[in-house]
Amino acid sequence: MNELPPVVLGPVVLWADLAGIFVSALGGALLAVRHKLDVFGVFVLAIVTGLAGGMARDVLIGATPVAALANTLYLPSALAAGAVVFFGHRVIERASQPVMLFDAMALGFFAVAGARKALTYGIDPLPAVLLGVLTAVGGGALRDVLLAEVPRVLKVGELYALAAMLGATIVVAGDALNLPSTLVGIAGALGTFALRMVSVRFGLTAPRAPGSD
Amino acid sequence: MNELPPVVLGPVVLWADLAGIFVSALGGALLAVRHKLDVFGVFVLAIVTGLAGGMARDVLIGATPVAALANTLYLPSALAAGAVVFFGHRVIERASQPVMLFDAMALGFFAVAGARKALTYGIDPLPAVLLGVLTAVGGGALRDVLLAEVPRVLKVGELYALAAMLGATIVVAGDALNLPSTLVGIAGALGTFALRMVSVRFGLTAPRAPGSD
Amino acid sequence: MNELPPVVLGPVVLWADLAGIFVSALGGALLAVRHKLDVFGVFVLAIVTGLAGGMARDVLIGATPVAALANTLYLPSALAAGAVVFFGHRVIERASQPVMLFDAMALGFFAVAGARKALTYGIDPLPAVLLGVLTAVGGGALRDVLLAEVPRVLKVGELYALAAMLGATIVVAGDALNLPSTLVGIAGALGTFALRMVSVRFGLTAPRAPGSD
Repeated sequence: MNELPPVVLGPVVLWADLAGIFVSALGGALLAVRHKLDVFGVFVLAIVTGLAGGMARDVLIGATPVAALANTLYLPSALAAGAVVFFGHRVIERASQPVMLFDAMALGFFAVAGARKALTYGIDPLPAVLLGVLTAVGGGALRDVLLAEVPRVLKVGELYALAAMLGATIVVAGDALNLPSTLVGIAGALGTFALRMVSVRFGLTAPRAPGSD
Repeated sequence: MNELPPVVLGPVVLWADLAGIFVSALGGALLAVRHKLDVFGVFVLAIVTGLAGGMARDVLIGATPVAALANTLYLPSALAAGAVVFFGHRVIERASQPVMLFDAMALGFFAVAGARKALTYGIDPLPAVLLGVLTAVGGGALRDVLLAEVPRVLKVGELYALAAMLGATIVVAGDALNLPSTLVGIAGALGTFALRMVSVRFGLTAPRAPGSD
Repeated sequence: MNELPPVVLGPVVLWADLAGIFVSALGGALLAVRHKLDVFGVFVLAIVTGLAGGMARDVLIGATPVAALANTLYLPSALAAGAVVFFGHRVIERASQPVMLFDAMALGFFAVAGARKALTYGIDPLPAVLLGVLTAVGGGALRDVLLAEVPRVLKVGELYALAAMLGATIVVAGDALNLPSTLVGIAGALGTFALRMVSVRFGLTAPRAPGSD
């Protein structure tokens, strides 16, 4: 599976990336509207939130030009999400906690896409998990940095990076066991989404260093 | 025009990049002096503001080593601007709003250089416009992030990203029409500069999302 | 020394990188504990502080997949430092100013590794010094940005970037003089560490622009 990586990426990376881009860009654009940014701020945050994590992944593994620029569907997906939010944010906001929900879905899609693409490029299992997490949290982290806020991935009390790590680990483990990549991808995305939602619902938190309180 | 891209970049990318580097580094170094940073802070912000946007562009399209390191004129251009400001900032500050002026000029040069280089590397028109905008706003955005401020490109009330987008679009459209690249480059840089100055002069603003006020 | 760069990197880059990763990750993880981040925040800051500078260097020179992902020792070094701090931070904190000390040591290791790797990839002397400095200060700068603080490298009153520049310059000068790379590397790392410690001990500061006070 490692020869000619750009050709044999398979459908999991593509569809997981596209789904992640659209829902994370929705979340980023909603945050922009809440921060009262103008139309360009809305699209900039949609693009950053949707594409920056995968861009970082592609740059680090040497998959250039990055898919966000080379694939004809990536950028339009982020732009479409920006347009949906710009005109429809009042409808979307009626859902409870839409940014959190979109973030949790994107987290799962991106963790799967990032880990799978890393494996396809011959990256070892441990750094492949890291790349899944980076793909999942990178766009949101850059969005938060641009808004001059500490990225939520660093904040105590949310199983955010751990949820992405679960999904990426499922993909890496499934690959080691030669399980079918589509099923493994679905399991990884669902696992991430479920752990994230459960942690928010029941207030699960990761431990701090002993004696740091 | 797409074979052997590093060899056939042509003069537009080189000169637009160099002009953009020098004037944006002037602006970055002036900001550093105003923030009372020391001599290294001045040169760091000159380098970041002048080179980071083009570095991001080159990394994303796979043009490595990036021109900022491989071309013998890029880094010295940023350093020269840093030196001019370090010793001459009191003279420069007498101009009205020099940072804004340098930023507007650099915006035009970089939008042209970024879009043209992207096209030369075989990037499609839509992402080529995005790369023009990234080249134009990337260095200033990183500079603002390092100063722990929200990048001005995200702030309501300034046609900043739109001005860069105009210049990049002129380059991409001119390329599609097979117009001579030097003339198109000049038109793009002038268009960006003019729109940016007009928007500051007359207080033009981009719209916010309907109902977000 | 320039043919087949990945094969002939030599031991200096590897060991200087690994030493830099471990001690800078210690410093990053300690900062995370002080900021009361949870276990994932501790490991994220360890990874960011330890690996981001070298990742940036490798991406800019086109050495992809970056060593932080391709070398089997890099990521575990950062993770080991995170674990040491998570369980042992109370012991480490008894040392006086451990973050400052670890930062100064990492600064030397990274300045040497960055400049040496740049030279091996055929980068010119001046940008090679810049890459040494970037490798040295990049991880800490990103760590500070993620904590929504102005990076210490920009703050007046610390010979931080200058110390890294000294070490990188020793490497570049030693290479031009054909001195043995291991000795030159040790001299560079010691020079950086010594200048940084002396500047902290005696309060040496870099000058500001004339008339900016």
